[in-house]
Amino acid sequence: MYWSPDCVENVVIGINGQFPGPTIRALAGDTISVELTNKLNTEGVVIHWHGIRQFGTPWADGAASISQCAINPGETFVYRFKVDKAGTYFYHGHYGMQRSGGLYGSLIVDLPEGEKEPFHYDGEFNLLLSDWWHKSSQLQEVDLSSKPFRWIGEPQTLLMNGRGQYNCSLAAAQFINSSSSICEFRGNEPCAPQILHVHPNKTYRLRVTSTTALASLNLAIGNHKLVVVEADGNYVQPFSVDDMDIYSGESYSILFTTDQDPSKNYWISLSVRGREPKTPQALTILNYFPTSASKLPTSPPPIAPLWNDYNHSKAFSNKIHARMGSAKPPTTYDHRIILLSTQNSIDGYTKWAINNVSLVLPATPYLGSIKYGLKNAFDHKNPPEDFPSDYDVMKQAPNPNSTYGNGVYMLSFNSTVDVVLQNANALAANVSDIHPWHLHGHVFWVLGYGEGKFTEEDEAKFNLKNPPLRNTAVIFPYGWTALRFVADNPGVWAFHCHIEPHLHMGMGVVFAEGVDRVRKVPNDALTCGLTGKMFLNNKGH
Amino acid sequence: MYWSPDCVENVVIGINGQFPGPTIRALAGDTISVELTNKLNTEGVVIHWHGIRQFGTPWADGAASISQCAINPGETFVYRFKVDKAGTYFYHGHYGMQRSGGLYGSLIVDLPEGEKEPFHYDGEFNLLLSDWWHKSSQLQEVDLSSKPFRWIGEPQTLLMNGRGQYNCSLAAAQFINSSSSICEFRGNEPCAPQILHVHPNKTYRLRVTSTTALASLNLAIGNHKLVVVEADGNYVQPFSVDDMDIYSGESYSILFTTDQDPSKNYWISLSVRGREPKTPQALTILNYFPTSASKLPTSPPPIAPLWNDYNHSKAFSNKIHARMGSAKPPTTYDHRIILLSTQNSIDGYTKWAINNVSLVLPATPYLGSIKYGLKNAFDHKNPPEDFPSDYDVMKQAPNPNSTYGNGVYMLSFNSTVDVVLQNANALAANVSDIHPWHLHGHVFWVLGYGEGKFTEEDEAKFNLKNPPLRNTAVIFPYGWTALRFVADNPGVWAFHCHIEPHLHMGMGVVFAEGVDRVRKVPNDALTCGLTGKMFLNNKGH
Repeated sequence: MYWSPDCVENVVIGINGQFPGPTIRALAGDTISVELTNKLNTEGVVIHWHGIRQFGTPWADGAASISQCAINPGETFVYRFKVDKAGTYFYHGHYGMQRSGGLYGSLIVDLPEGEKEPFHYDGEFNLLLSDWWHKSSQLQEVDLSSKPFRWIGEPQTLLMNGRGQYNCSLAAAQFINSSSSICEFRGNEPCAPQILHVHPNKTYRLRVTSTTALASLNLAIGNHKLVVVEADGNYVQPFSVDDMDIYSGESYSILFTTDQDPSKNYWISLSVRGREPKTPQALTILNYFPTSASKLPTSPPPIAPLWNDYNHSKAFSNKIHARMGSAKPPTTYDHRIILLSTQNSIDGYTKWAINNVSLVLPATPYLGSIKYGLKNAFDHKNPPEDFPSDYDVMKQAPNPNSTYGNGVYMLSFNSTVDVVLQNANALAANVSDIHPWHLHGHVFWVLGYGEGKFTEEDEAKFNLKNPPLRNTAVIFPYGWTALRFVADNPGVWAFHCHIEPHLHMGMGVVFAEGVDRVRKVPNDALTCGLTGKMFLNNKGH
Repeated sequence: MYWSPDCVENVVIGINGQFPGPTIRALAGDTISVELTNKLNTEGVVIHWHGIRQFGTPWADGAASISQCAINPGETFVYRFKVDKAGTYFYHGHYGMQRSGGLYGSLIVDLPEGEKEPFHYDGEFNLLLSDWWHKSSQLQEVDLSSKPFRWIGEPQTLLMNGRGQYNCSLAAAQFINSSSSICEFRGNEPCAPQILHVHPNKTYRLRVTSTTALASLNLAIGNHKLVVVEADGNYVQPFSVDDMDIYSGESYSILFTTDQDPSKNYWISLSVRGREPKTPQALTILNYFPTSASKLPTSPPPIAPLWNDYNHSKAFSNKIHARMGSAKPPTTYDHRIILLSTQNSIDGYTKWAINNVSLVLPATPYLGSIKYGLKNAFDHKNPPEDFPSDYDVMKQAPNPNSTYGNGVYMLSFNSTVDVVLQNANALAANVSDIHPWHLHGHVFWVLGYGEGKFTEEDEAKFNLKNPPLRNTAVIFPYGWTALRFVADNPGVWAFHCHIEPHLHMGMGVVFAEGVDRVRKVPNDALTCGLTGKMFLNNKGH
């Protein structure tokens, strides 16, 4: 549908006539039922419930080719799943580049009645962060699949709750050394910023989620400290910062206290991190009662850390620990998988690969093909669990043996799995990107981050005392990140870079565990590919 | 894939890396087998074999929601069908606006070895005509479904064999009173015109098909007469004209003789008819041996008839008669259906409707739902076979009782059916468009065209002596067109305006006949909607 997310008219994938989709709010322990009817003309669609474990309902995970078939135009699929843990989540498309096309919304799970959060707040806000291109998601897909490769470029605009400003700035003229004009809003425009109205001397909870297709972000509130208390639906030991990084796929709750001069307003800013920022800072206003919301802050907007000040980012990540009293990880692992991320050229196409295999999703959902033992739905050879020991992660590498693949890492049910994500140099010299990796169906402990190539000796540095539980963790340029999780959720689960064009270019793997324990997968999740054919061949007619 | 159909880079739906798709050539009596693998990212796809009757293979007709489910990304569907009659045909997408997106190609059926055409020619050419928008087909779909309505506008460029020139003209400066510059080509550009190289004093067969999404066209070759010999795969009594109209969905063979000065070249021109032309004339060159192909014609390009000179168009249509000795139509009919075409506003959406019903295609293909007696797949009430006798086709009408519908006209097998297509005033005053109606699965006799509202008395004017056989026939503004066909092809068949946005806006109906005689529909044509669910419920697992 037509919409103007950043004051420039464009087409978005809307839900029930809204963009972003409606916020879904439930209590922990609730069962959520969503009837998704696909009203697109020719495109299939799915929705992934990001951060929800889907324990017992792996078919409701909403990952096309993995947990279900895409829903055809005109058809309805019912997602029915339990939300077992309070926290800040979101939902989004997980097919092609439909997330970039605007298919997303917030999902907030509150504590059951009678239970209390381990921190106090007087009110709360929710900010769903995203990035927006003026080029359609379909054209972006063609770009990424072209030979020679065409990069989609940086987003035109950053959005907060689906609202951004492309041709103007809230702080123009007054503070920003740019030619852009000051924004003028009546207030009811779809791109008018959502102002946060607060009372003095209160504490607010700000829920922040990032469903960006590409951008890593830095959030700050001028003159206010941010106290981080939740990450990806897990409590963290509270710590205070002036600004915070948030990568695609992550969610946080932060507390801030309105202890500043109430006769002024303050900037809330969002800036690009980790890529040379060609996208302007996004702004909105923290409005103190009884000051008018239209009064601009008297100070300039917060200055973001330099885009490539990775030490700043690492310092933030290293501050995140599990809240005291949280469950500790198993002290040993059963299975360790090393995953090297490289940018590769395969037959002249630019791809991302894991241990030199670039993921191409099959036409048949793995959940069905594994459950029903279909032999030809994907490559049953085990994908590589390591990379050559002489591989130099600091240098450009031609990786001449790169291939496409769709194999599955088969995990023993209830085993403890360590994954070491290893970053490396990309195709160009002296380039190594940030990649936030997201695991479906689980939470993992982040045992640590390190520089260069991971070695067995690095294990001594693992934090087994208070590692944070997350569902998304970043690998820094030329570094490694170590994760541990228990493979206790029967199903098939994507584990992938949450940068949507990177996943589209093959940057992901597939884990499966205990699929024999999955109770009957609803047939209507499996109407495509070889599972579809299997039903057809039941010769009822 | 990226392509530059009109010298402006854009994305087209290609086939095997080509645009237009490869020309398929076969002999009458051959069975054609096409394996269509859908390599689009998130869109389904089908291909309709326009003009092929699909006798005995109604599931291979390639009309989404009617003969089959759209083929999912990553999946392959095999179209296997017999081409029983020599002639000039084409193929194209029949889902959403994918035809407008470039999904088309030529299909030429030659006489079997040993058989001879009833006319002589020394060589032949093929011109597949289309129109091209710079806006993607997905955005066009959103436009047409928007409230308030957004018309897609006129095409930017007319294409011959997928080649056109947007920013320049072959005849610029020299002849055309415009600011556009002269085209300069090396010759290997995808938008370089395809030049027709001929020898003097020969006769050539020019096959012409129009797969335009919108434009009605007029074709002329400067200084040369066109002798029409074939229409939609049927021989016609040869007649000679200076220029000819061709509507979307039509195909012709014309003969021309190279009897002009061989030291010159001549223009071949294509112009818009029936809509105020905002799209420049398309040109290519008829190049006489041994003159250089780069030598421009010395005369200006042919001047097209005025866009609204409907008398010129009617005169052409009325010249088309069946070749002497062709089979005559039955002299009486069993069933007459009057179909009034109106433009309607339904809940603020702009639609086209037939007898006040705007077609919305169902999620389940009719061929499956009728074959298997599924009750809830579509509305089983018969759609209206006439319109109120006091309806004034010359005036704007609010049509307050317009509805959406998906009912089927059930035809008795082997009955003779008359269809009278009745045109009317559109929503705006003094507007009545041209609509070329195309029938799947059949040829029909065009019994006549008339002005104003059809009455029983008009029947006396029907041509039962030598009406031409066609699969596409136009209704002129404020007029009617009478067709007769025998419902002898078991299956379900679309009958619709071949202007793609008009069909998308509801301008079509569905005929069904003898579905009980259809042998087993391949299950893989029916994996969606309620037929899909039917297979799932066979509880094999």
